[in-house]
Amino acid sequence: MVQLYEDERLDYLLADESMRIIQSHSVFSFSLDAVLLSNFAYVPIKKGNIIDLCTGNGVIPLFLSKRTNAKITGVEIQERLASMATRSVDYNNLNDQINIVLGDLKDMPQKLGHGKYDVVTCNPPYFPTPKVDEQNKNEHYAIARHEIHCNLEDVIRVSSQLVKQGGKVSIVHRPGRLVDIITLMRAYRLEPKRLQFIYPKKNKEANTILIEGIKDGNADLKILPPLVVYKEDNEYTNELKEILYGTN
Amino acid sequence: MVQLYEDERLDYLLADESMRIIQSHSVFSFSLDAVLLSNFAYVPIKKGNIIDLCTGNGVIPLFLSKRTNAKITGVEIQERLASMATRSVDYNNLNDQINIVLGDLKDMPQKLGHGKYDVVTCNPPYFPTPKVDEQNKNEHYAIARHEIHCNLEDVIRVSSQLVKQGGKVSIVHRPGRLVDIITLMRAYRLEPKRLQFIYPKKNKEANTILIEGIKDGNADLKILPPLVVYKEDNEYTNELKEILYGTN
Repeated sequence: MVQLYEDERLDYLLADESMRIIQSHSVFSFSLDAVLLSNFAYVPIKKGNIIDLCTGNGVIPLFLSKRTNAKITGVEIQERLASMATRSVDYNNLNDQINIVLGDLKDMPQKLGHGKYDVVTCNPPYFPTPKVDEQNKNEHYAIARHEIHCNLEDVIRVSSQLVKQGGKVSIVHRPGRLVDIITLMRAYRLEPKRLQFIYPKKNKEANTILIEGIKDGNADLKILPPLVVYKEDNEYTNELKEILYGTN
Repeated sequence: MVQLYEDERLDYLLADESMRIIQSHSVFSFSLDAVLLSNFAYVPIKKGNIIDLCTGNGVIPLFLSKRTNAKITGVEIQERLASMATRSVDYNNLNDQINIVLGDLKDMPQKLGHGKYDVVTCNPPYFPTPKVDEQNKNEHYAIARHEIHCNLEDVIRVSSQLVKQGGKVSIVHRPGRLVDIITLMRAYRLEPKRLQFIYPKKNKEANTILIEGIKDGNADLKILPPLVVYKEDNEYTNELKEILYGTN
C-alpha cells in the first residue's frame, strides 16, 4: 500500500517489475540522465556508504540499490519530492538500505559528517539561474533544473567534503559546463578519473557528460567508449537497451 | 630537385600526389595525430597568420596550406627537422606561404610578437620527461615525444601569448592530460570551445583528444561527434578515410 497525492503515479522502474517509483508529470519524473548516472557510477558491492545529492524522487538510490548492499542516503531540498522519495523507498521495502534526508545539501557536511562516504552521486540542476521571468513557471521543475538553491561549485565543494580520501564522486551534466566541472573538481581535490560522453546519434555533438573524480587521486583521466543513444532509424542502440532494460 | 640526407625519403602527403614531404624513419615521420589536428583546426580561408609550434618536418603547415591562403609559420627547435621542413616547403614551391623558423618556442613571443596570430596549432611532446634511461635512445624522437625542451604549460602559455584576442589555439594530445590542458588553457585565458575524442574502435577508450580554445572566449564548450578510427574488421572507418584520402 502506498499513499499517492494529486496526479502522482506509481511507475515501474524501467523494465524492472520488482521495483516501483512515485512520479508526477507536474512535480518530477526521472530522466535518462539519472539512469545513465546510476549505471556509470562506481559502487562498492557489499558494504559502504553512498550519498546521492539532489535526489529528487529518489530515482538514483532506487537504481543503485539493485547494484549494491551499501547504505544509501538521498538528500533533497524540496519537501514534496523528498516525500515522494520516502514513500517509494517504503513501498519497495528498502527502509533498511535507503534513507531520504530533507534538507539543503550545503548543510550536509555539518549534519552528516566530513569524509564519511565512499561514493557521492549527483544529478544537479544544469542551468545557471536565469532572470525569474525566464525560469520554469513550475517551481518544482525550476528548482530541479536551475541553480536556484545550489550552484555547481556548491555541489562539487560539498561532494568533496562528504567523500572519503580515495572515495569517488560521480556527476552527470551538460558539455557546456565541462570546463567549469573539471576546474572546480581539481580545485576541490576531486581528480577526474573517468569521463564518458553521450551522443544522441553517432554523427551528433554530445549532449550529456558523465564524470567521476577521486578525492586526492593522481592525474590519470580515461575517456570511456562513446555512448550513442539512438540509431539512424531513431530506435535505441543496443548499448542503450542494455542499460535501460538489461538486455538488447 | 631536392637534397635528401642519409635515410631521408620524399613521401607523398597521403593520397595527395601534388605534394611531397621529406621524412626519415630514424629522424621523424608524421603521425595520424598531425593529420587529425590539420583537419580539426579552424583556419581562415583567404588571409591571416597561422603559427604551428613543434612543427617537426613541417607536416601541419603543409596540410594547412591546402585549406588556406593565410601565411603559415612553423617553429621547430631541432635543426635537422627544421631543415627537412624547409626543404619540403621549397620542394612544394610554398616559400611565399610557409616560413620555417628554427628556434625555441619559448622565445617566439619576443621574437615574432605578442597577439599577432589568428590561429596557433601544436602537436606537442606528449610525455612528461622520464628518467634519462627511460627516454627514447634516439634523440630526435626523444625531443619530439618527451617534454625535454618544453612542457605542456610552456606550450599553452606561449600559444596564449602568440594568439590574438578572439583567435584560436588547437592542440592534439592524449586523454590522460585533458584535465591539465583544460585547467592550463583557462588559466592562460584560452577558453576551450571545441573538443573531439578519437576512439580506436567504437567500444574502446579514446586514445587521442583534439581541443580548440579561443583567447578570452566565453565559456561554451561543444563536444564534437566521436571519431572512430577502425571498424571491427580493422579497416579504416568511412569518416577516417574521408579525412585521410578526401573520399570514402
